[in-house]
Amino acid sequence: MGGARDKIETMSAEVTDENPYSRLMALQRMGIVKNYEDIRKCSVVIVGVGGVGSVAAEMLTRCGIGKLLLYDYDTVELANMNRLFFTPDQAGLSKVDAAAETLLNINPDVNMEAHHCNICTVDEYDKFLERIEHGGIEEGSPVSLVLSCVDNYAARMVVNRACLKLDQAWMESGVAENAVSGHIQMMLPGRTMCFECAPPLIVADGIDEKTLKREGVCAASLPTTMGMTAGMLVQNVLKYLLGFGTVAMYLGYNAMDDYFPTMMLTPSGTCPNYKCLELQKKYEGWDMVSSVMPWKALEAAEAADREVVHEANDWGISCDDDEPAIDWGESAEPAAPGTGVKYAFETNVNEQVAEEDLVQVDADASVEDLQAQMKAMMKN
Amino acid sequence: MGGARDKIETMSAEVTDENPYSRLMALQRMGIVKNYEDIRKCSVVIVGVGGVGSVAAEMLTRCGIGKLLLYDYDTVELANMNRLFFTPDQAGLSKVDAAAETLLNINPDVNMEAHHCNICTVDEYDKFLERIEHGGIEEGSPVSLVLSCVDNYAARMVVNRACLKLDQAWMESGVAENAVSGHIQMMLPGRTMCFECAPPLIVADGIDEKTLKREGVCAASLPTTMGMTAGMLVQNVLKYLLGFGTVAMYLGYNAMDDYFPTMMLTPSGTCPNYKCLELQKKYEGWDMVSSVMPWKALEAAEAADREVVHEANDWGISCDDDEPAIDWGESAEPAAPGTGVKYAFETNVNEQVAEEDLVQVDADASVEDLQAQMKAMMKN
Repeated sequence: MGGARDKIETMSAEVTDENPYSRLMALQRMGIVKNYEDIRKCSVVIVGVGGVGSVAAEMLTRCGIGKLLLYDYDTVELANMNRLFFTPDQAGLSKVDAAAETLLNINPDVNMEAHHCNICTVDEYDKFLERIEHGGIEEGSPVSLVLSCVDNYAARMVVNRACLKLDQAWMESGVAENAVSGHIQMMLPGRTMCFECAPPLIVADGIDEKTLKREGVCAASLPTTMGMTAGMLVQNVLKYLLGFGTVAMYLGYNAMDDYFPTMMLTPSGTCPNYKCLELQKKYEGWDMVSSVMPWKALEAAEAADREVVHEANDWGISCDDDEPAIDWGESAEPAAPGTGVKYAFETNVNEQVAEEDLVQVDADASVEDLQAQMKAMMKN
Repeated sequence: MGGARDKIETMSAEVTDENPYSRLMALQRMGIVKNYEDIRKCSVVIVGVGGVGSVAAEMLTRCGIGKLLLYDYDTVELANMNRLFFTPDQAGLSKVDAAAETLLNINPDVNMEAHHCNICTVDEYDKFLERIEHGGIEEGSPVSLVLSCVDNYAARMVVNRACLKLDQAWMESGVAENAVSGHIQMMLPGRTMCFECAPPLIVADGIDEKTLKREGVCAASLPTTMGMTAGMLVQNVLKYLLGFGTVAMYLGYNAMDDYFPTMMLTPSGTCPNYKCLELQKKYEGWDMVSSVMPWKALEAAEAADREVVHEANDWGISCDDDEPAIDWGESAEPAAPGTGVKYAFETNVNEQVAEEDLVQVDADASVEDLQAQMKAMMKN
């Protein structure tokens, strides 16, 4: 490992075409991010270094994250070899220690903490809280983000409680027992649904969490679905930490039909967790865009500033704003097809209307009237 | 490596909770796939073992693929360390040799061919054709599928020509220069658009391919986008080879807004490649569902068979078919939210209508009439 450490150009080295950092800094040159170097100031806790967590850790390591704090009580098993990251020769080692060694070999510049423990125990829970609160880049500062990559209900509850207690932003992830669906979810205490408002995995994948860890039952798993979920998660982490694009509040993945739902899940006013209710009060009237994506609010403000109103504007000339409207659904339009590309189905908006299809429209008819009439008919 | 080989339970070993194959076979127990073991009979050529190809190869290896044939002329560089898979100690090695060693260490049961060559040269092109045609599981048989994971126009053209010549199914993949979008595409000669009908990457990502490989310009790249693209690709490979779910004919990924467009791209009647035109004639009138997804056609037929018509059915009882309709767009509906989950926006389909909103509907009005009237109004 020492050899590799000497060999690799460290992330903080000069940016040249010979080192990996130049390809990351290119994001800045292309205007995707404002300051890629900021990733060195970020620290991320990963709870659960399994099928999703290990790949998420590798992605963050290769992106040059400042600090990673890994939590897992498990050891590597041969049964894990159908997921990415761990190798057969690591069987028997603690997952966090094996992961830390692999990750430091890839990028020795990451400040790595490996915690081989179960955060669901009383002692370890207190130490876990302490690291979230004080384990940031500058010792004593809080971490930037917590990622839950666990596979059971109890651990999710613990992460949820810890993050509610500390008002700490976190992201949840999960893969269904049948291996063909997954999801990620942004968790902002008091502002988005917490895990006690409604257990996210059950909402997301329509499966009963209790069945996930049935004794003696082996859940299916695929490296593809695990890799996709890790990719969705870390992409969202990069967008949130470095400030670009649209941060997903919830992003699902259904592999069977390539369906990727997005949504916003608001907290429940009857959540049994009093910290959640307390924080809901604290954040009453919060604005998602300006809070989660200040760069979007800034862009909108800058666009508004550019709308110079000339005092003498006799011709009433105005400029169209070509910034797309912010939208949380699946609204983006596919680009118009190039030459040789055909739509699978044609629309008939611009086609000639045959004589027999012509209809008479009342002179005083309005679209609203017709819509109302149609709606009334539909109900009958 | 020998130690690891001795240690790992091989994929063909007995299925127990201790080996990785049991988690893959669980897909069968759960009814996702009919016969997971069929993956052992499949062979896949991967052209380009870079950011997407190396991860795709690892996913297929961990899924227990029968045979992999890797093609790449490049060597591992430290500049690649911001993508997944390769490690700094492999710098300087040929990509295919380094990949083959890592992959065989993970799963020694895969029949692995590493071709360190440039398929764009005349000699290597002929050998490449020979391997597609005769490099399958049983020597002499064709491979199951070819994956293009290259980063340049010339190599895509070569894969396209080879697969047109042999009428070989392949899948194309690509990541944009700005690192925040990617796509995969199913290529069936004569049935879907070929690379000469319209260069897929240009259609897909709206970027000029020539700018991709500008001398001295370093394209951005992220392990997240590369991992997502590899995940989308291999998930589609599994669906196509093992026969489950909906095979994507085209699946795009825009990381900025988590937008995943799907579409069907038909071949061009004015394609400059005569083999494409020839195959378009051969496959005239082909049916996508019965050809690409026979399991879907079978399911539909079985569902139709289940519609037993009782001779005496005085009450006119019939059963609803609860199979979802096949759909190529983004049509799947999200599951209904559970308790505590709220929609971000409410629909008003079922709400009470206020007195002043009530409208009178002509007794002889039809929905078609109203639609025609509205359409006519829209045009005015």
